[in-house]
Amino acid sequence: MQANDLDKQAIDLHKKYQGKLETTAKVGVTNRKELSLAYTPGVAAVCKEIQYDKHLENELTLKGRTIAVVTDGSAVLGLGNIGPEAAMPVMEGKALLFKTFGGIDAFPICLATQETQKIIEIVKNLAPTFAGINLEDISAPRCFEIEESLQDIGIPVMHDDQAGAAIVTLAGLLNAAKVVGKPLKEMKVVISGAGAAGIAIARMVLCLSFEQGMCTPVKDLIMVDSQGIILENSNKYKAEIAKHSNKEKITGGLREALKGADVFIGVSKGNILTADAIALMNKNPIVFAMANPVPEIMPEEAKKGGAAIVATGRSDYPNQINNLLAFPGIFKGVVGVGAEKITNRMKLAAALKLASLVPNPTFDKIIPSVFEKGLAEEVARVVAEAV
Amino acid sequence: MQANDLDKQAIDLHKKYQGKLETTAKVGVTNRKELSLAYTPGVAAVCKEIQYDKHLENELTLKGRTIAVVTDGSAVLGLGNIGPEAAMPVMEGKALLFKTFGGIDAFPICLATQETQKIIEIVKNLAPTFAGINLEDISAPRCFEIEESLQDIGIPVMHDDQAGAAIVTLAGLLNAAKVVGKPLKEMKVVISGAGAAGIAIARMVLCLSFEQGMCTPVKDLIMVDSQGIILENSNKYKAEIAKHSNKEKITGGLREALKGADVFIGVSKGNILTADAIALMNKNPIVFAMANPVPEIMPEEAKKGGAAIVATGRSDYPNQINNLLAFPGIFKGVVGVGAEKITNRMKLAAALKLASLVPNPTFDKIIPSVFEKGLAEEVARVVAEAV
Repeated sequence: MQANDLDKQAIDLHKKYQGKLETTAKVGVTNRKELSLAYTPGVAAVCKEIQYDKHLENELTLKGRTIAVVTDGSAVLGLGNIGPEAAMPVMEGKALLFKTFGGIDAFPICLATQETQKIIEIVKNLAPTFAGINLEDISAPRCFEIEESLQDIGIPVMHDDQAGAAIVTLAGLLNAAKVVGKPLKEMKVVISGAGAAGIAIARMVLCLSFEQGMCTPVKDLIMVDSQGIILENSNKYKAEIAKHSNKEKITGGLREALKGADVFIGVSKGNILTADAIALMNKNPIVFAMANPVPEIMPEEAKKGGAAIVATGRSDYPNQINNLLAFPGIFKGVVGVGAEKITNRMKLAAALKLASLVPNPTFDKIIPSVFEKGLAEEVARVVAEAV
Repeated sequence: MQANDLDKQAIDLHKKYQGKLETTAKVGVTNRKELSLAYTPGVAAVCKEIQYDKHLENELTLKGRTIAVVTDGSAVLGLGNIGPEAAMPVMEGKALLFKTFGGIDAFPICLATQETQKIIEIVKNLAPTFAGINLEDISAPRCFEIEESLQDIGIPVMHDDQAGAAIVTLAGLLNAAKVVGKPLKEMKVVISGAGAAGIAIARMVLCLSFEQGMCTPVKDLIMVDSQGIILENSNKYKAEIAKHSNKEKITGGLREALKGADVFIGVSKGNILTADAIALMNKNPIVFAMANPVPEIMPEEAKKGGAAIVATGRSDYPNQINNLLAFPGIFKGVVGVGAEKITNRMKLAAALKLASLVPNPTFDKIIPSVFEKGLAEEVARVVAEAV
């Protein structure tokens, strides 16, 4: 199928159904009796129950099972700052995925402001309406401050471009390390891209902000952005990574970083690497080229340079690293137990579970398929247990 | 059925279904092809369409068919300021009614703030997500400022406790006037209650803020609040009513107001009137005692005082004045044509249509039943034509 065929089909589908998600009655209100139970006067008794114990809102209303997918449209897919209106198809789609893959209700919220403080204020005030907030496609570094500022609003708030990406990447890395027979803690990792995903993956593999003993960091990490290897003079999120990485103080660009590295993780942009750059890496290198839709290096080219394992974000190659493996199960887990936060312990549990769902990983199968049955339930279970 | 039986059944129903509304997939995402159309990579083409023309969001996403039911929980039913959590069963119920009666999607939003400016700011920033906003159960006089401040955000915003109440009351009054054989413009009206509904009904029957010639005011009106007949020293919304009413400058309380009045409209509280007060009114008085669940005067008692026509908010007596007659059709109408505001012309058209749906009104039938088929469609049609 040609790309523009797909585009046309996608537009036609959205036009036909006027989107993809609807709100549907769970109870009838087609006669006086039903109306008096679902609405006035009976509903007043339900309100009073909650008035006396706020937490009953979770048991008696959709609040207890509904996630908001919130964006400001500032960093949508690879399209950039296209605004809240144009972001809606993605948010509605994500809400649809929550329902179909996780069995939990979700509703898209596209905000007309890109002011960090206003977004924080609005999301905070949405807490009585939702069981959790999935922040989506908000540009870095604003996304870090927004997510951090919303950790104490009483419901879990997770920026999926950060946490989701980090969890599925770690799951894939764990199995890739198993396949090449070298533990992750002995590996040197290069990350290309210092946006939401890059920073979150770096923090995860470096075990930054993890409790003592919960997590084992990789041997070393070098982060490269569009200006080259990041150093201390960058923004505070990049600076934190710089402080905890690049032990040999290597300077330069991606090629310099790759010399002697074991893992390449690309969350930057398409076609920035060639086979000869991969050849600079250690033996049996692991290449996660996850830029979408065009990876940093195509799998064939990476293999030519000696890559042992290649993963991408694409569904037409083996080893698709896709956030959809994580977010439905994570929110299903926290919503099910009424957790107030999504912790590092939960994220780690989710990554380990995802890795374990491929008990015998191979070069071409390091991560489950998103369509494997019961996947969200498995992730939800370990997340709930990690509370 | 005993009241506490009803309460128990209502609570059980809400517990069983964990609320009343869910978000449901309109399209499948159960294989790679479907996923690539509803989500990445196909969805990017849909985003780009909207990026080039924002209005296409209405055609291509749920935005074009979904209403928000927004509250701060400050004036819920007759329960008062019970907060956003306890307000959720009502908001979720209202969203359910939008879907079942109007065939349009709706989602409840309960906000954690009761600060007027914050509510305005939040609702303004929700505009890219919804086709319209139904403000609900926000206390007076804050509700007036909030509704007014949100008239230019590009989507219709209506406070149903004001507009909905005014529309259905006017519809009932038009037919009641027909039954007693005296035109509304020759009638003196007393309104008990100066909250959202009382002020909105007064503004409607006085034709305040209507274009010249669009509307004919009643002969006179007296508004009574808990302090007695309102005079100029009240808040600015009450002051505006005072300025345009009570031509004879009558002072005192409800009894003084009722002397020689043709219509009593109660939107205050239960059991504040007796038959002898009704007897002070003109011949064949019309009594709309709409406090819920206990009216200002019970129908039997009002009849004893000489009332020709009695209407209440209750379903167990004839002539139920219920906002549910208006709001699904009004929003269905504006959403259908993509109107940016709900105008007085539309409200008037809705009231006239509702009245006309009872072609031969009688003492016991001045208003349609909420369960009459096609009612929302009829209202929607005239609202859309009034754009």
